[in-house]
Amino acid sequence: MSDRQSRRPVVEMLRAFATEEPLSFHVPGHKNGELTGLPAGVRGMLSWDVTELPGLDDLHAPEGVLREAQELLAEAYGAARSFFLVNGSTAGNLAMILSVCRPGDRVIVQRNAHKSVFNGLVLAGARPVYLAPEWDERTLAAGHVPASLVREAVSAYPDARAVILTHPTYYGLVSTELPRIAEVCRQSGIPLLVDEAHGAHFGIGEPFPVSSLQLGADVVVQSAHKTLPAMTMASFLHIAEGSSVMPETVAGRLGILQSSSPSYPLMASLDDARHFFATYGPADLESFLARRERFVGELSRIPGLSVAETDDPLKLLIRPEGVTGTGLQKVLQAVGVYAELADPHQLLLVLPLLKKESPDRFDEAARRSRAAMKNRGPSKFVRRTAAYQPIAGMTAADHPPAEDLDSPKEWIPFREAGGRISAASLIPYPPGIPLVLPGEEIVPETVTRIGMLLETGVPFQGRHRLKEGFILVLL
Amino acid sequence: MSDRQSRRPVVEMLRAFATEEPLSFHVPGHKNGELTGLPAGVRGMLSWDVTELPGLDDLHAPEGVLREAQELLAEAYGAARSFFLVNGSTAGNLAMILSVCRPGDRVIVQRNAHKSVFNGLVLAGARPVYLAPEWDERTLAAGHVPASLVREAVSAYPDARAVILTHPTYYGLVSTELPRIAEVCRQSGIPLLVDEAHGAHFGIGEPFPVSSLQLGADVVVQSAHKTLPAMTMASFLHIAEGSSVMPETVAGRLGILQSSSPSYPLMASLDDARHFFATYGPADLESFLARRERFVGELSRIPGLSVAETDDPLKLLIRPEGVTGTGLQKVLQAVGVYAELADPHQLLLVLPLLKKESPDRFDEAARRSRAAMKNRGPSKFVRRTAAYQPIAGMTAADHPPAEDLDSPKEWIPFREAGGRISAASLIPYPPGIPLVLPGEEIVPETVTRIGMLLETGVPFQGRHRLKEGFILVLL
Ligand SMILES: Cc1ncc(COP(=O)(O)O)c(C=O)c1O
Ligand SMILES: Cc1ncc(COP(=O)(O)O)c(C=O)c1O
Repeated sequence: MSDRQSRRPVVEMLRAFATEEPLSFHVPGHKNGELTGLPAGVRGMLSWDVTELPGLDDLHAPEGVLREAQELLAEAYGAARSFFLVNGSTAGNLAMILSVCRPGDRVIVQRNAHKSVFNGLVLAGARPVYLAPEWDERTLAAGHVPASLVREAVSAYPDARAVILTHPTYYGLVSTELPRIAEVCRQSGIPLLVDEAHGAHFGIGEPFPVSSLQLGADVVVQSAHKTLPAMTMASFLHIAEGSSVMPETVAGRLGILQSSSPSYPLMASLDDARHFFATYGPADLESFLARRERFVGELSRIPGLSVAETDDPLKLLIRPEGVTGTGLQKVLQAVGVYAELADPHQLLLVLPLLKKESPDRFDEAARRSRAAMKNRGPSKFVRRTAAYQPIAGMTAADHPPAEDLDSPKEWIPFREAGGRISAASLIPYPPGIPLVLPGEEIVPETVTRIGMLLETGVPFQGRHRLKEGFILVLL
Repeated sequence: MSDRQSRRPVVEMLRAFATEEPLSFHVPGHKNGELTGLPAGVRGMLSWDVTELPGLDDLHAPEGVLREAQELLAEAYGAARSFFLVNGSTAGNLAMILSVCRPGDRVIVQRNAHKSVFNGLVLAGARPVYLAPEWDERTLAAGHVPASLVREAVSAYPDARAVILTHPTYYGLVSTELPRIAEVCRQSGIPLLVDEAHGAHFGIGEPFPVSSLQLGADVVVQSAHKTLPAMTMASFLHIAEGSSVMPETVAGRLGILQSSSPSYPLMASLDDARHFFATYGPADLESFLARRERFVGELSRIPGLSVAETDDPLKLLIRPEGVTGTGLQKVLQAVGVYAELADPHQLLLVLPLLKKESPDRFDEAARRSRAAMKNRGPSKFVRRTAAYQPIAGMTAADHPPAEDLDSPKEWIPFREAGGRISAASLIPYPPGIPLVLPGEEIVPETVTRIGMLLETGVPFQGRHRLKEGFILVLL
């Protein structure tokens, strides 16, 4: 860690400014918190909720502390240029897509991307080529797109303007093939854009994985609020050294997509999160891993639970016997233990990224969970994942995946839909991998698959009338 | 005020949830603030910075407290439907524009709109018809578009998909012609979209103006953070009863433009701001007006300063003798008095919207200002506004106002630019009304005006090389 990284320019500026007790005749209307009706315990932050006064810099044209803070961020992650985001990784995903493509452009994209990626394609008017991920039996969830498929897509669509992947998965799975994929993209001159929402802490030290920024990605978006201690909506965007994506273009797109009054508390929390990341040392890591191991042990010894690990030590999967993950979620929530996500098979926990001196609540959580499991009701849920294998390969669509495509539509029986263009998305959940996206052709295999999934009783997200056997297609 | 309006469902929910001291194994990574490095005085709010846990509702699909809070908002403002925005009025302006128009559509828009409005046109791919506002000698700033011009535009472009106006002005000026404009729009079946960023408090009681929502606008966007006590980035969007703009469409666009992890502190502050607005009573108003009057009196008696009032009692203009507004801003800032905005002529103050029981800092501010004015240096600034009259009328452009239009460009002497399409915006400041926008034809009168303004030494914003006499045009 460089000495510079121990600074927090935004935090320091706001602390100094608030200490002056300035008299506010400007926005925001709460006047350093004096007019708020929020309770005393939480209103302290409003004294930091300032605006672009002379000397406080401007995120949209940074020349002072905000510039310095973003330079420290780039340094900490080894990026050519980094940006603070105040509208989530959503803004980052939209901006990186709008930076590289224009209406009609081809874009190669992972089929189970976050909706902000699809929304980016809609805003850009891009024509997607969808790549299917593999199913991952370790995390019982969607995995990654194989390098061979990316290679195939890139040779079929050499004019594509981007390859967009999600990495890691929500469950903390990384792809060992990412460097190879990056190589394929570089050789074809196509930028690799990575939605790394769940990997803001990657690179903090082994055994944590490294960021895709180090593995050859061009642009990387990270939800600092998810795994680092930033406030919700606070994210990072990094551009790699040597990338063809221009920082000025990205800055321009972010200027469109983010409020002209970005929140200083959010920016301070990003500055603090970068500081946390950059100053996290071996002793912190050791302490975290030791306490984590004990917690895993305690959880594993609770009758009826087993723990599965993934590639990211910050994530734990808890699998109950004879109960769904959703059922377990309710049981634990009743004793005040809140998990990140429940699926039919398991609960996903996002652990606290403890520093040496951080308090932890592991013992308390294990104690409460053990007690709660004693009282759980009987259940006869049986895990089955055979139907989750996505249809492999790629498909090209001539429409961006807009949920409200402008063209006339009709409802037809799904069994007669082969060859038609879907007007809606059909997402069996689990596994949450879209079977069809709006604007995509419904191939015969999709029809078969819908039938199979309906038989197993898997619910479908998206706009459909599958209870009556009908789906919405373009006329 | 209805009894319901005394509730604050989001605030109450978060308070109750934080009191339970939940154990967090979910995002955000700061774990109810435990891992943050932010100082103790401000970190209290992090215990409210939660995520979409079961029971805490979801802004993007509200069914619980967030639905109720937005219903209370609609009720308080007399809207058919209202939305909490967490990405500023920027997101509101983008969403309302994307809700009504598609690539190639005609849109009638005020020439001096906020950049978020122009960005909305860019994202939508709309073809704008620009309307010039009048110059307002009272506020020494751009005023409003006359109703006659809107009528002219609507008959010339009956296929326009929207009329977009800014109301009030930054300086608190309202247009008496707004009801007539709304009537024109209604008769032509064109939705009237109003950027009311500076009027979130309108309708709180006389002598404050009423909201354009009451005067016939279809969609109204308000920066609750500017004039109500909400946190920065927290805004409102309202849809009027009987409007043809569909709430579901707007909700869909907001779902694209705002983070999938909206900030609960921002939403709580919006709930609190709505409560503030709805519970603001006659005694509050009386107290505010009395204290305001005294403040105006005290400021007016400071040698070298005069005070001008505008239509919005929350705004004050302070005009110094022989000094620019920017000069005065520095003088006052040195004693910790921070104004909203300085232009060559004046300072704009945004007063605190005091309730009866609110503390105020008026005496302190007047005292400090008086002291500071004693020490100000000499200056010989003379006010001149003759050059600021914008070119009246309307012009149609075939390109959206994108700062980076895709077409090839060249630099040419501005005197030879008549008839060419500008590739950049040229904004003389003051008055801040764009002379040309990217994609707009440069008419002979524009060329004359550039010459005039250069002679008076007014600086130009935008991408240009006017020092050498060159501007950027499309090839
Ligand atoms: C994979 C992925 N990408 C992007 C996002 C959007 O990020 P944010 O919520 O920070 O806007 C999320 C958040 O849920 C996500 O899981
Ligand atoms: C007239 C006007 N419209 C829109 C905006 C954008 O609002 P926000 O900063 O809340 O995103 C502003 C803010 O400066 C404004 O002055």
